[in-house]
Amino acid sequence: MMKKVYKAHILFTKEKDKFEVYENGYIAVENGRVTGVSTDLSALDSEGAEVTDFGNCLLIPAMNDMHVHAPQVHNQGVAMDLELLPWLQQYTFPEEAKYADVRYAERMYRRFLHTQWLFGTMRSCVFGTVHTESTRLLMQLYQEAGMGALVGKVAMNRNCPDNLCEDVEEAVAGNEQLIAEFNKPDALVRPIITPRFVPSCTPELLMACGRLANTYQLPVQSHLSENTSEIAWVKDLEKESSCYGDAYNRYGLFGQTPTIMAHCVWTSGEELDMMKRNGVMVAHCPTSNFNLSSGMAPLRTFLDEGLRVGLGSDISGGHDLNMFRMLVYAIQVSKMHYQHDRNKPFLTLSETFWIATKSAGSFFGKVGSFEPGYDFDALVIDDSVLYPDEYSLVHRLERFIYVGDDRQILHRFCRGQEVKEPTVD
Amino acid sequence: MMKKVYKAHILFTKEKDKFEVYENGYIAVENGRVTGVSTDLSALDSEGAEVTDFGNCLLIPAMNDMHVHAPQVHNQGVAMDLELLPWLQQYTFPEEAKYADVRYAERMYRRFLHTQWLFGTMRSCVFGTVHTESTRLLMQLYQEAGMGALVGKVAMNRNCPDNLCEDVEEAVAGNEQLIAEFNKPDALVRPIITPRFVPSCTPELLMACGRLANTYQLPVQSHLSENTSEIAWVKDLEKESSCYGDAYNRYGLFGQTPTIMAHCVWTSGEELDMMKRNGVMVAHCPTSNFNLSSGMAPLRTFLDEGLRVGLGSDISGGHDLNMFRMLVYAIQVSKMHYQHDRNKPFLTLSETFWIATKSAGSFFGKVGSFEPGYDFDALVIDDSVLYPDEYSLVHRLERFIYVGDDRQILHRFCRGQEVKEPTVD
Repeated sequence: MMKKVYKAHILFTKEKDKFEVYENGYIAVENGRVTGVSTDLSALDSEGAEVTDFGNCLLIPAMNDMHVHAPQVHNQGVAMDLELLPWLQQYTFPEEAKYADVRYAERMYRRFLHTQWLFGTMRSCVFGTVHTESTRLLMQLYQEAGMGALVGKVAMNRNCPDNLCEDVEEAVAGNEQLIAEFNKPDALVRPIITPRFVPSCTPELLMACGRLANTYQLPVQSHLSENTSEIAWVKDLEKESSCYGDAYNRYGLFGQTPTIMAHCVWTSGEELDMMKRNGVMVAHCPTSNFNLSSGMAPLRTFLDEGLRVGLGSDISGGHDLNMFRMLVYAIQVSKMHYQHDRNKPFLTLSETFWIATKSAGSFFGKVGSFEPGYDFDALVIDDSVLYPDEYSLVHRLERFIYVGDDRQILHRFCRGQEVKEPTVD
Repeated sequence: MMKKVYKAHILFTKEKDKFEVYENGYIAVENGRVTGVSTDLSALDSEGAEVTDFGNCLLIPAMNDMHVHAPQVHNQGVAMDLELLPWLQQYTFPEEAKYADVRYAERMYRRFLHTQWLFGTMRSCVFGTVHTESTRLLMQLYQEAGMGALVGKVAMNRNCPDNLCEDVEEAVAGNEQLIAEFNKPDALVRPIITPRFVPSCTPELLMACGRLANTYQLPVQSHLSENTSEIAWVKDLEKESSCYGDAYNRYGLFGQTPTIMAHCVWTSGEELDMMKRNGVMVAHCPTSNFNLSSGMAPLRTFLDEGLRVGLGSDISGGHDLNMFRMLVYAIQVSKMHYQHDRNKPFLTLSETFWIATKSAGSFFGKVGSFEPGYDFDALVIDDSVLYPDEYSLVHRLERFIYVGDDRQILHRFCRGQEVKEPTVD
């Protein structure tokens, strides 16, 4: 593939402590990967390359949503004043049951993908439902759109409505169908093993999930230590596990293959050590923490401990698919911790941007930075309505993150390809 | 003036515990005031009235921003990772000093008003700067736009940069100029007496402010008990005051005329009792509480105690001028309190909507409801991109509040007049 060069004000975070800033910079891309960034075109070894000039726009890495329930898109921003249990029973489970109907799934999943596209989210770790056909459809829609995703057919067989229960053999067979179809090396859209969470999976199902992950060397996602009553419940269900995390670990679902766990609000001690040792990533979902009164995940502590971290929207516990808003909320959550403990400095903008891009992106491979070899996942931001000439480049980015919206995202790239607006119903 | 009738799905909160919902309802407006709401046009005594049909749109009371610093619009969404003191000194004060230049003020104030207009904020309690000319200009711009505002020339004469200090005589003279020009009965734009906060006003200046409020029977706004070090500072500066609130009360600035105090994060005991007794309103600024790590105002407690409450954006401690987002944040703050004390139920959507509309609006007169006699301050919401046909009317409103934006606000009315888009520079 021919080399391409893009010119713009380029910002990214190679290290978490500062932005790399290339005012009127050039970035060279070949076969979907970055080959170099410089303010000097001649330094990029790109004679004959087509140069696309984005003028006064910002060029930044695209967003990664590390925890999101696609089938909850219809419940986004409604019934937020119910508590967790009635909300699950009255809204979440009945909604997911509708995905037995592939036509319903298509209508809703197209909306979901369109909204992710709007906000520049080019990679996601996605929960589907138990339904194999609807999950296949979601994966096909991601493929057609050209957006990257690890998509999970959800495994659940206890403590849930009958119409969402699946026996272990069916769960394995459904997963193996999707694995046969989608588990191609280096594919943008791949399966991820997805036990819903310990309370909704029998030991047999967890064991089957662990076997699938190991046999096909597939990544794993689930929920961990979101709220205190859930933790007590798991303790009761899995008496032989030394902590909630161990209830996954015992079944080969905690870092034996790449693993990401949503929430981890109450993770500490042995569980935290195990995550660190096993390289398990935290998907921090700040709006969800707020909306569900779960408590607030201590991201500064996780960073200090060297845990891998990313940000998730957690629709529809979270209400917003705009990952830039998730950066704002993550900073605000860290300021709440700082309010109570001045030894836990709140997250800086560059740290939070690094978490959302390079740190999160590492779950997909070389994603989330503009260093050589990284996939060119990028957004072109036209912030001309935000009075750009009166601010530094970093402040322009900060303003876009805090007060901008999808209208300022002019172009979206995933692995070097421009991603065009997906069709809705 | 001729009677007008508008048809739409009408929602408002007469009481805080529930929405009044008129599906395909009619609202009659005469001389800028509501005369009735009904689903039966013939019940409205409006023969011959022109009926404007907004079809499937929602019609709701407009937003009120009860605490906002207009001259901080340029700092909106930047430098959010500085702490309060360096942020004030490096960003806020230098920015406010620029308002000595009326041309600079005009450029920025036009941007500010335009953004308020975009988000449907039709009434505001606004801090200007110490500069009389720039404050006059801001008031003129509000008048031209047809938007309601109580605008304060800020009084400050200690603990601030020299170029923002004004001596007491100048402060009084400047205020009296603005009062002579703008203090008309029933005017949409009026002055409000605005000591910045106790630490930046000498006792002489506070006394002069109290005299102005009393002499001209003008409302008062300031800051109160935002963070713990500020409270300690006030205790040190005003040794004879029994609490921070008393340091205003002693000078006739705490309910002797209608008074609104921003923040009140740490207000309790004697201060809370005094506010209740004197009818002082709290302007709760949730994004600012988050961004500045001030702590979280306990709104459920204030409601339980019967305090008057409203919501404020507090630009640029807050980062968002969209008051609908302020509702979301207010609910989230209340969920944080609920997380720690299950006896403090979090705010419901109708309670929060009532706070933002009818409760806040009472500071301006009969504003914020659609009961007969109320000013017709209203927004027409076209939520067709949010799939309205699949939701109840209250869920449509909730979705707009959580995931909508200015694009869905089709028309804005202030006291019966449609407010057209103000010009920017």
